[in-house]
Amino acid sequence: MFTGLSAFAPTPLAEAAVDEPAYGRLIARLARAGVDSIGALGSTGSYAYLDRAERARAVAVAVRHAGEVPVIAGVGALRMRDILHHVEDAQEAGASAVILAPMTYEALSDDEVFALYEEVCANLSVPLAIYDNPVATRVTFSDELHSRVAQLRPVAAIKLPLPAVGVEALAARVTRLRALVPATVAIGVSGDDAAAAGLSAGCDLWFSVLGGTLPIECLALVRAAQRGAADDAAATSARLQPIWQLFARYGTYRVVAALTEQLGLVPRMHLPRPVRSLDADGMRSVAEALTAANIRL
Amino acid sequence: MFTGLSAFAPTPLAEAAVDEPAYGRLIARLARAGVDSIGALGSTGSYAYLDRAERARAVAVAVRHAGEVPVIAGVGALRMRDILHHVEDAQEAGASAVILAPMTYEALSDDEVFALYEEVCANLSVPLAIYDNPVATRVTFSDELHSRVAQLRPVAAIKLPLPAVGVEALAARVTRLRALVPATVAIGVSGDDAAAAGLSAGCDLWFSVLGGTLPIECLALVRAAQRGAADDAAATSARLQPIWQLFARYGTYRVVAALTEQLGLVPRMHLPRPVRSLDADGMRSVAEALTAANIRL
Repeated sequence: MFTGLSAFAPTPLAEAAVDEPAYGRLIARLARAGVDSIGALGSTGSYAYLDRAERARAVAVAVRHAGEVPVIAGVGALRMRDILHHVEDAQEAGASAVILAPMTYEALSDDEVFALYEEVCANLSVPLAIYDNPVATRVTFSDELHSRVAQLRPVAAIKLPLPAVGVEALAARVTRLRALVPATVAIGVSGDDAAAAGLSAGCDLWFSVLGGTLPIECLALVRAAQRGAADDAAATSARLQPIWQLFARYGTYRVVAALTEQLGLVPRMHLPRPVRSLDADGMRSVAEALTAANIRL
Repeated sequence: MFTGLSAFAPTPLAEAAVDEPAYGRLIARLARAGVDSIGALGSTGSYAYLDRAERARAVAVAVRHAGEVPVIAGVGALRMRDILHHVEDAQEAGASAVILAPMTYEALSDDEVFALYEEVCANLSVPLAIYDNPVATRVTFSDELHSRVAQLRPVAAIKLPLPAVGVEALAARVTRLRALVPATVAIGVSGDDAAAAGLSAGCDLWFSVLGGTLPIECLALVRAAQRGAADDAAATSARLQPIWQLFARYGTYRVVAALTEQLGLVPRMHLPRPVRSLDADGMRSVAEALTAANIRL
């Protein structure tokens, strides 16, 4: 399951609720494209903003429309009580795995982060991916902390962020972590503009934001890297560069919402206030980036 | 209402729920001590970890036990929908004011933060305090952003953090902000070890964490500052220094929970996992700090 392209789908929000029919269509489109797994309720899937019932129903919709493709469900929350509810609901809905970032309001110590994963793992019957997202969670995973958490039984993958210092540091980190975590634990790259470099540097998979809206293009990148054609992977990545630039400029979350709308995947893509959609200038930049990247609408 | 000592009470948590009788006793004790206002569901009051029903009931308990003392209720949440629910519930429960920090998962732009306050203010019939807490929210309020938000009609106070560069920078900031915000907007200091300096530098009030468990001592500090006895205020602050040091070392939230227990205010003070209570060493340090600060148990 933790291999190739893990495509994280945005969650289409209508004015006040999840647009479940639109979400189902979006998931089915990813499955038809042949992605290796589907991420439901990742960061761009708005998990942090949805309540328990919305999240339970969204995972059920994703599983129903994913066919044979395994669904990895985000289960993060500020409070353990809520995390355990989401774990229970995700398993009930048929998720094949869960992915968990340590959300924080009060800062957490390494021991608290470890204990968080330990308690969740004790309540899991499916594999877990560690979601290392220092920007949104303010938790910095040291190599040592990854190593401790990765020893827990159902941990099966680590979603690594792109280091601020760049792609070379990512490759070095993957090499270090390989020596520290069990061989059964897959290491995945996120930070979409680092995907080609990360896969060529030995990452097992790409936990992909853009894969949730442009699966064909992202699969081309992944399959090239998998057959050892690093140059082809890099060329596809370069072609998508106008979109990576928008991620950096406006934030991945807002850009993916705009892409979802401009690709015609949903009629209108709301974001949960206080987050606001891109303004007219931003929307125009997204349209221009799609043209520049030669994406047919 | 936004003057003197605003004492922010911890919320006693039992294993799985708010310990409402213990919370009521804690609030009544603050009212008897003569604090100027009571903060319910601030950061040390665990607001970020409680659900809607728990928060609504906690505010009702606080109002019932606060007597004539105004209650300022924390209404923050990641999503506007939830913030508006908390606003509605707090007003329904009889809160005299609300206090709002812009919680984030996705980073918010200044325009998004402004629009957040604008929408909340449009739904408010009581005054609002801006809760500027960059560590927990990752929102940095520039002077300009404070100035914009403070023009909104029901904004009545700003809770300023202690700048990382220290107390002199706080005094300078208060002076700058006085020129930028309406004269009706009170400016309060938080960061308890800066309280004496902040009040002496012209802050209208102290939004106090320690005031929620040691109101007598904190009132002594505030009343000294109010009568112009800056040296007396500084001496009281110096006496409490062993406790401020623990705040810095273990985090305010965990230390306040330990204090609440060690002062005998609740039999057992749980924290919401994944946050963990202080270990035996930490508990011993708190006991030693209470002795060093000459606090009678």
